[in-house]
Amino acid sequence: MADKVTGGSSRGKSIRCRAAVCRRPSEPLVIEEIIVAPPMPHEVRIRIIYTSLCHSDVLFWKIEDYAAAMFPRILGHEAIGVVESLGEDVNEVSEGDTVIPTFVSECGECRDCKSPKSNLCSKLPFKSSRVAPFMPRYETSRFTDLNGEAIYHFLSVSSFSEYTVVDIAHVTKIDSGIPLTKAAGLLGCGISTGVGAACRTANIEPGSTVAIFGLGSVGLAVAEGARLCGATRIIGVDVNKDKFEVGKKFGLTDFVESANSGSKSASEVIIEMTDGGADYCFECVGMASLVQEAYACCRKGWGETIVLGVDKPGSQVSIPSKDILTTGKSLIGAVFGGLKPKSDIPILLNRYINKELQLDEFVTHEVTFEDINKAFDLLIEGKSLKCVICMDDQ
Amino acid sequence: MADKVTGGSSRGKSIRCRAAVCRRPSEPLVIEEIIVAPPMPHEVRIRIIYTSLCHSDVLFWKIEDYAAAMFPRILGHEAIGVVESLGEDVNEVSEGDTVIPTFVSECGECRDCKSPKSNLCSKLPFKSSRVAPFMPRYETSRFTDLNGEAIYHFLSVSSFSEYTVVDIAHVTKIDSGIPLTKAAGLLGCGISTGVGAACRTANIEPGSTVAIFGLGSVGLAVAEGARLCGATRIIGVDVNKDKFEVGKKFGLTDFVESANSGSKSASEVIIEMTDGGADYCFECVGMASLVQEAYACCRKGWGETIVLGVDKPGSQVSIPSKDILTTGKSLIGAVFGGLKPKSDIPILLNRYINKELQLDEFVTHEVTFEDINKAFDLLIEGKSLKCVICMDDQ
Repeated sequence: MADKVTGGSSRGKSIRCRAAVCRRPSEPLVIEEIIVAPPMPHEVRIRIIYTSLCHSDVLFWKIEDYAAAMFPRILGHEAIGVVESLGEDVNEVSEGDTVIPTFVSECGECRDCKSPKSNLCSKLPFKSSRVAPFMPRYETSRFTDLNGEAIYHFLSVSSFSEYTVVDIAHVTKIDSGIPLTKAAGLLGCGISTGVGAACRTANIEPGSTVAIFGLGSVGLAVAEGARLCGATRIIGVDVNKDKFEVGKKFGLTDFVESANSGSKSASEVIIEMTDGGADYCFECVGMASLVQEAYACCRKGWGETIVLGVDKPGSQVSIPSKDILTTGKSLIGAVFGGLKPKSDIPILLNRYINKELQLDEFVTHEVTFEDINKAFDLLIEGKSLKCVICMDDQ
Repeated sequence: MADKVTGGSSRGKSIRCRAAVCRRPSEPLVIEEIIVAPPMPHEVRIRIIYTSLCHSDVLFWKIEDYAAAMFPRILGHEAIGVVESLGEDVNEVSEGDTVIPTFVSECGECRDCKSPKSNLCSKLPFKSSRVAPFMPRYETSRFTDLNGEAIYHFLSVSSFSEYTVVDIAHVTKIDSGIPLTKAAGLLGCGISTGVGAACRTANIEPGSTVAIFGLGSVGLAVAEGARLCGATRIIGVDVNKDKFEVGKKFGLTDFVESANSGSKSASEVIIEMTDGGADYCFECVGMASLVQEAYACCRKGWGETIVLGVDKPGSQVSIPSKDILTTGKSLIGAVFGGLKPKSDIPILLNRYINKELQLDEFVTHEVTFEDINKAFDLLIEGKSLKCVICMDDQ
């Protein structure tokens, strides 16, 4: 049971609260009491209000044989919460502010943050190998269990805890006038990734044809972004044909059932459907073979393949040299859809408030924090798009 | 000895003239008399004035075990000449016009030709597998030897002949006011490829850092293009350190001797030199491993790797999936530097006449047609940048 601390009373002290700890790979998270240390300089402690589950959480929950397999760990990186207290030298937010933490940082000062072309902050860079097991500025943990053992962080967020500590470079402040909805936290990862990839990385031209490989929430967020950009044909590719109905509300116009297209590969079907290939292809699964399929069916001359899926460690994408040289196609990847969190999340949030961008439609399920393992089951079984975990409904 | 036919007398008739025929791979070209048929509809017959040698000629001269090994063949695809006669339905040029034939076509009517994003004409597409052994519109040859055997074309140009036949979609007319110089024909392939890749495909921003892998004429033309775009640092990478002196006149500011950088790879040296990587990397050799090196040392966040080198058939470029996803780098290839020949060669030619674009500086050697095999030796030995073969100096 968490202390329901509020700004002031807990400031500068450790907080004892509940967290869902991943103690061993692939085993259910254990809801247990932990100690959350006060924030160090440039850090904030956040009370998580809503968090949701992303495929990357599942990937690193299951991972066993890689540098990133670090347990015990507090997963979760898509959330919205309220600032409980501030470390020193934090001026950007105040106690009580609503914030969205993100796995990508924006220091605002480095060459990347100052460039309109990059969202890969150099001061606190995203390191994919161990996916941020510690606070980025100090390489130490703020979590300990009741036996005094340190618990690893995850992706600089660790939102599967009633309280977490996040570096200020990883925190986006939300205007006080904006309601704290269950869906808004989705902008902390998956939906921003998909919408950003469509609108920022690809910058889809109106009238374009788009193919999306993998219709999870990121893929459907690409569809939503493509719809906002004025794409006229949005083709979804998935093994599960039920995804077509789900996807129609996000602008999907066509569907290719990838496991059931006869003797033809999905790329061959798309080349035929589009008379030469899609203008933009998005890979949202994380499989090198699908990146190659996507590349194969983007239009010669100008086609772009945008990679968003997180593949297994060590995986390689192979493309014939001749195709690279002679087709004029381009291949690019995007972390967080190419968006800078502090700059771009408020823009997306405003589009959501103005009812241009659909967010609530991604939330198919809700569970209490105690039922967090149900969220894993729903995602793994393909039943949920986004399952929101409500931290306060205890 | 060629009949020195002029417009009118030879119109509609076959021409007997000299050509340098590649009868067997890797053997010296044989200067022999051949018969050049009159142009069919949409074709023109051209008297070649100057031609030059490109690495692709050497590649397909040597090739033995691939679909493109088709002999006897007339190689050559970088040239300038004068229209001798016209097939039916040719309105774009007249007899006596100066023209530059190109291996890429521009029909002006297809979706690609009408798009500002593509230079890959769909009506008469460039097919790399057999590199155009026939006239593109009819799949027949216009060349026969004196025994009546057909001789294969090459890259829709076959300029190692006193007369050749080229489809009008592959012909760029040069304004009559422009002098017919030895260097102008270089715009038919290598120099346009390099300058176009810098100025069009990459569209290098002023103040950028550029790395060029391979300092042959294409690589140095990239340097020239980068210089024109206002790049402030242009790093050349080559096994031959003499190339640095040569490259300085085309804007090269730094040099990495790729075979002699100690325990470090060229990409590691470049990352150090540039504090993170070059903004644009160009691969101008045609080796998958160098594409991977170029990709490795282009700057995270916005770096672009542009592939211009023609690799061996079957070669594959492999890139770690994680790098594609997390670095924000892009990979793209360009045929003919992304330029549309009829639209862009006149622009480059004007920049040359206005002394902005250096062309004459690429011509390091000249030989007579009879000495064409010397041009091969000079290029293979790395002694020439561009060796112009003067067809009229017999």
